Amino acid sequence: MKDRPLPAEFELIERFFAPLAKDYPGALALADDGALIELDPGHRLVVTTDVLVAGVHFPAADPPESIARKLLRVNLSDLAAMGAEPLAYLLALALAKDTPSSWLEGFVRGLGTDYAEFAIPLVGGDTVATTGPMTLTLTALGKVAEGSALMRSAAKAGDAIFVSGCIGDGALGLMALEGRAGELAAAHRDYVIDRYRLPRPRLALGQRLVGLAHGVIDVSDGLIADLGHICQTSRLGAKIEGASLPLSDAARAALADDPGLLATLVTGGDDYELLFTIAPEARGSVGEISHDLGLALTPIGSMCEGSGVTIVDGIGLEDVLEASGYRHF
Amino acid sequence: MKDRPLPAEFELIERFFAPLAKDYPGALALADDGALIELDPGHRLVVTTDVLVAGVHFPAADPPESIARKLLRVNLSDLAAMGAEPLAYLLALALAKDTPSSWLEGFVRGLGTDYAEFAIPLVGGDTVATTGPMTLTLTALGKVAEGSALMRSAAKAGDAIFVSGCIGDGALGLMALEGRAGELAAAHRDYVIDRYRLPRPRLALGQRLVGLAHGVIDVSDGLIADLGHICQTSRLGAKIEGASLPLSDAARAALADDPGLLATLVTGGDDYELLFTIAPEARGSVGEISHDLGLALTPIGSMCEGSGVTIVDGIGLEDVLEASGYRHF
Repeated sequence: MKDRPLPAEFELIERFFAPLAKDYPGALALADDGALIELDPGHRLVVTTDVLVAGVHFPAADPPESIARKLLRVNLSDLAAMGAEPLAYLLALALAKDTPSSWLEGFVRGLGTDYAEFAIPLVGGDTVATTGPMTLTLTALGKVAEGSALMRSAAKAGDAIFVSGCIGDGALGLMALEGRAGELAAAHRDYVIDRYRLPRPRLALGQRLVGLAHGVIDVSDGLIADLGHICQTSRLGAKIEGASLPLSDAARAALADDPGLLATLVTGGDDYELLFTIAPEARGSVGEISHDLGLALTPIGSMCEGSGVTIVDGIGLEDVLEASGYRHF
Repeated sequence: MKDRPLPAEFELIERFFAPLAKDYPGALALADDGALIELDPGHRLVVTTDVLVAGVHFPAADPPESIARKLLRVNLSDLAAMGAEPLAYLLALALAKDTPSSWLEGFVRGLGTDYAEFAIPLVGGDTVATTGPMTLTLTALGKVAEGSALMRSAAKAGDAIFVSGCIGDGALGLMALEGRAGELAAAHRDYVIDRYRLPRPRLALGQRLVGLAHGVIDVSDGLIADLGHICQTSRLGAKIEGASLPLSDAARAALADDPGLLATLVTGGDDYELLFTIAPEARGSVGEISHDLGLALTPIGSMCEGSGVTIVDGIGLEDVLEASGYRHF
């Protein structure tokens, strides 16, 4: 079957995008100048936007399904870090003129899969031609009860620091895709590539942390940098225990081969886990949430007076970071 | 003075963008994972997004001030067409790595000028590097009282069709910038270039049309195409009188030189005027609004049963469009 170039805007909306909007009347079938969003009384709207550029934020040859889902999920991860529930999203796509229809079909199929998973409709957008790399912008809207939003700036000295899931798999996945991950076993390789391509926005966790957590951020720039953001906005320091960092079997295997990789795992980003601080006496609640969600929540250190992130133990993380020239802390 | 490349993200926000957010507490100083927006009870949020690509939607050499203001204003024009009041906006910028700081200073200065004019704060964004042309995405948020939003789809057969301001100056401005506008007098040339670079979003008009107008759209794709969108979503046809189209002195002068230009004026787009339909007996109210706002509102035809846009008179518009190969109607 011969692949065809993209149709004109009206057909593009009708054929590709309208199905992603059909259950949301306020989307006005993507046929008006804007969309209408209803917000429950006593709530605040949460808005966030992220751009992904081919060749910078994802390999251009990645499957369009996973590019679409990553674009949506990195934004959902921001909503999760605010304790918000997803409401709707807008899509702004700059695509090459000769983008084949099959590519856009895959892209829309990916969004459809996540529509089923996260119940978040498309409500608006714009599609334009570019002579440069594909540039994809998504703006996500969510809601949170008034006074309940989680913030980076609310950490307190003495708080325990937790992180969800495992750290470093996203960075390792990108290395594997680029042929820089050494001798990973096939199962480990598949696992980390999947973690890179398909973030798991921790929406349920974010909502459970409302009223419990103090400082919260999603780990997108790398564990150390994002903990640095909590420190900076909360005007505090943080101490983390290198040996306590949660690593997957794949990451442990890679580290056994190359201990220097540790620096990449904690600075590489693309984890999309939640990093949060809580009063030490609230640790029990974290255990309950972890159990309810079936999601590891690992204590990795504590907030303190001062500034910046300090590493306080002996798996050599501090040395490795110094050797790598890392300067964020 | 030597120009410097852009600083890292944190400094970028602090130095360039935070001042555009400082009066809006929900922006969280652009330092969190998202922003918090309050919506008055009994209102709907209106959201819209537009992408501008350098070399496609604006000449890359245009002044950064006017690029910024155009980006904001094309989105405000969409809010105007919904009858909405502006609330806030998000900015997603893909810029070349070596973009000089002075360019971004100009860009932010432009946004600052329009912040003063439209009182619309920046509440979030993302800035990334691209190897391709500058790609600028803006998402605008507005509000409208429940049940009051203006829509393309609400035109009725028999409605009078009006358009604000003049048609074709934007298209003529682009031609002048590209050296394709023939022998325009200097004052006319300056006038049309300004109209191209700096749309006037008709926000006050949009708000006055709430409860009065039926079908409403902003003219961005060209008068004929956008009237076609009203026809399509309202399942009606439209008849327009070619001789009634409101043209500026500059456009009349250009037409006197080259009558074939008429096709460009009505199909070229970039007008950002409002096109709306009202019950014929409401014409008096339109006169009042025009007087109050000091803005020409010109009747150009009427809606009818059927489909598509028909041109019913004799300045040769239909022939000119046919000769130009235009197929939208």
